[in-house]
Amino acid sequence: MISNYFSDTTKVMKSSLIRELVAATKNVPGLISFAGGFPSPATFPKETLSRLYSEVVVEDGRDVLQYGASEGDGMLKDELLKWEGYSQLNHDNLMTAVGATNAIYYMGRALINPGDVIFCEAPTFLGTLVVFDALQADVQSIPMDSEGIDLNALSAKVKQLRAMGKNLKFVYTIPDFQNPAGISMSLARRRELLNYCKAQNLLILEDNPYSRLRLSGEPLPTLFNIALNEMNDVSLVTEIVSFSKILGPGMRVAYAKGDKELIHKMVSWQQKVTVSPDCVTQRVAARFFAGGYMEPHIKWICEFYKPYLEKMLNCLSEEMPKTVSWTKPSGGIFLWVWLPEEVNADSLFYQAKDHLVTFIPGSKFYPEGQEKYNCLRLNFTYSTLEQIETGIKRLGGLLKTIKA
Amino acid sequence: MISNYFSDTTKVMKSSLIRELVAATKNVPGLISFAGGFPSPATFPKETLSRLYSEVVVEDGRDVLQYGASEGDGMLKDELLKWEGYSQLNHDNLMTAVGATNAIYYMGRALINPGDVIFCEAPTFLGTLVVFDALQADVQSIPMDSEGIDLNALSAKVKQLRAMGKNLKFVYTIPDFQNPAGISMSLARRRELLNYCKAQNLLILEDNPYSRLRLSGEPLPTLFNIALNEMNDVSLVTEIVSFSKILGPGMRVAYAKGDKELIHKMVSWQQKVTVSPDCVTQRVAARFFAGGYMEPHIKWICEFYKPYLEKMLNCLSEEMPKTVSWTKPSGGIFLWVWLPEEVNADSLFYQAKDHLVTFIPGSKFYPEGQEKYNCLRLNFTYSTLEQIETGIKRLGGLLKTIKA
Repeated sequence: MISNYFSDTTKVMKSSLIRELVAATKNVPGLISFAGGFPSPATFPKETLSRLYSEVVVEDGRDVLQYGASEGDGMLKDELLKWEGYSQLNHDNLMTAVGATNAIYYMGRALINPGDVIFCEAPTFLGTLVVFDALQADVQSIPMDSEGIDLNALSAKVKQLRAMGKNLKFVYTIPDFQNPAGISMSLARRRELLNYCKAQNLLILEDNPYSRLRLSGEPLPTLFNIALNEMNDVSLVTEIVSFSKILGPGMRVAYAKGDKELIHKMVSWQQKVTVSPDCVTQRVAARFFAGGYMEPHIKWICEFYKPYLEKMLNCLSEEMPKTVSWTKPSGGIFLWVWLPEEVNADSLFYQAKDHLVTFIPGSKFYPEGQEKYNCLRLNFTYSTLEQIETGIKRLGGLLKTIKA
Repeated sequence: MISNYFSDTTKVMKSSLIRELVAATKNVPGLISFAGGFPSPATFPKETLSRLYSEVVVEDGRDVLQYGASEGDGMLKDELLKWEGYSQLNHDNLMTAVGATNAIYYMGRALINPGDVIFCEAPTFLGTLVVFDALQADVQSIPMDSEGIDLNALSAKVKQLRAMGKNLKFVYTIPDFQNPAGISMSLARRRELLNYCKAQNLLILEDNPYSRLRLSGEPLPTLFNIALNEMNDVSLVTEIVSFSKILGPGMRVAYAKGDKELIHKMVSWQQKVTVSPDCVTQRVAARFFAGGYMEPHIKWICEFYKPYLEKMLNCLSEEMPKTVSWTKPSGGIFLWVWLPEEVNADSLFYQAKDHLVTFIPGSKFYPEGQEKYNCLRLNFTYSTLEQIETGIKRLGGLLKTIKA
């Protein structure tokens, strides 16, 4: 039995709940899915990328087909520094990684001892929860209000855990168009969170896959930006930016920026775990910037997604019973639905499947033992407008039955 | 001080010794380097890859730019199964990873608890040693003779460690054109090692980056092959195959094959650590097989490298003092040099730099505390024929001075 050889962390590893759900809804004819976190394939800049891949391999092949630096492609880092415009930063403040989850893993590896406390928003991104879980962190979820993470709740929890002698490491947050809740942290709350964390010697991990996907309204400065520009602090926040919703998640490239010493340690982990991200793909991303494609492409994606978000919000208004509420994001790819307290979305999931519509039950976005059940996540970027209309009608119809 | 937040494993993490050596020899004009483990850029199939990248993104963009399976691209796994011709295996026996080191990391993550014993050849690949070190394994090095790992030494060590109550997990070996020693394990030794490990309930991790780079002589079956075909055992050996020396290491893609349950757990780790390897690159590798390019390309590379190996062996015969000996590999990219016992290659490294030639001192390929110093590694695939001639002359000249 090979399982006798498994390490302890592997023995207790849970299989992916979302995978099981996806398996349960696989091959159901006519099923409309709002479950995935997938960008629309229509947004992938295929023609430009195809040309850039071809050029990069021929022109830079000697370089990008050879072993690359564990800290990331120098040309890509040049472009990222230009794009972000932080004159205070240089290459040592940046690293690339095989996607944002990978960068989160390295930050976790660099900071977390088993039992250390990490704070996260409730609900939060499942993919990060499983990383922290694999690193045996003690993950504490903090509720959100409409402005973001609840600082009173955070402060109370910090006091309580400090009194218990716990080691507190960092707050994990997705301030813009949060996954899964679709909430964006207000500017005031951002400043309060930064000041609170600084005073309490807590670091911040800012996960930023969506801030560029703002479909309306004015962009807010990232936590990293405020810390650097208003507090002159480069160490308080580590920001991780993904290209998954911009170029396509199959190109596994993201980057992290922050304190040089921390980035250096994260790079050391990358050296051991993958040696480096794919060098061809990194250089293609660099040329996508260098060719001036990035800003127009992002604008185009935002225009593209607008009608999908509007459609979903309109359909929810029309189809949902009065007892149901939902977030109204100005961007990102998700929104969050609160059901009446007595409705359990884990059970609703199976009924919904019979009604040919699916979603991720909200409970999957909470650390184990801290779940809420009367909630669910909807994605609006992977279905057609017709599917959104039909799917939300089905879901609303089902919920009306349940309430009756 | 951000270092106050670092995890214990990060605090004790050593910086890469090879990096320091590389830094010490950077920007030395006229320096000839046999240090790296780099394939020749002339062997990268740039034109074919350029075309395939372009085609894959346009034709399969909807698929390969989207999130991909953590277990690896299905088309690539189809091609790998065809290439290897094991009718007993299916997709579940295979996973892809972000390079071979990445697959080794997942195998380590799946099996190693801190303090567990891993056996390796002495000397062995430094990149793997740092992985096992990061996973807090107790790495025990076993000497080799001309036929490979010394089974008497292994057996004695196993007995001793079992008596101490230690947990023994697996033997890590590079049977073909071993890095750094250039030794290939004999067929008899392969069978003996397999039988010994099976009897002792030890697993085997077979690292196979070089077996296809056979420049002369008949290929030997891999350990995985013998275990499956002669012993009907798919669990004893996990084989990891890299494309780094065939397509180019900048394309981060390798694969592991073995027991389904173990592969499943390694995939679970991959899901947490990177989500998946780059999907575009995986599909390009698949099309490289599907287009029939792989076998002719490998043949071409082997023909290309032959004169380089011959040149280095001839130059060593001509230039080295009688007290120096070296391995005579039939393939791979390295050979290993034994110096007289009183010569320390760590010191020689700095003298050699002054003579404008460099290599990796042999001590870097042993676990800490188990080093040998009168040895060094030479690479023959990254220098020109002229550089090989001049570089070996410089090294031989220096060694003659030292012996005089």
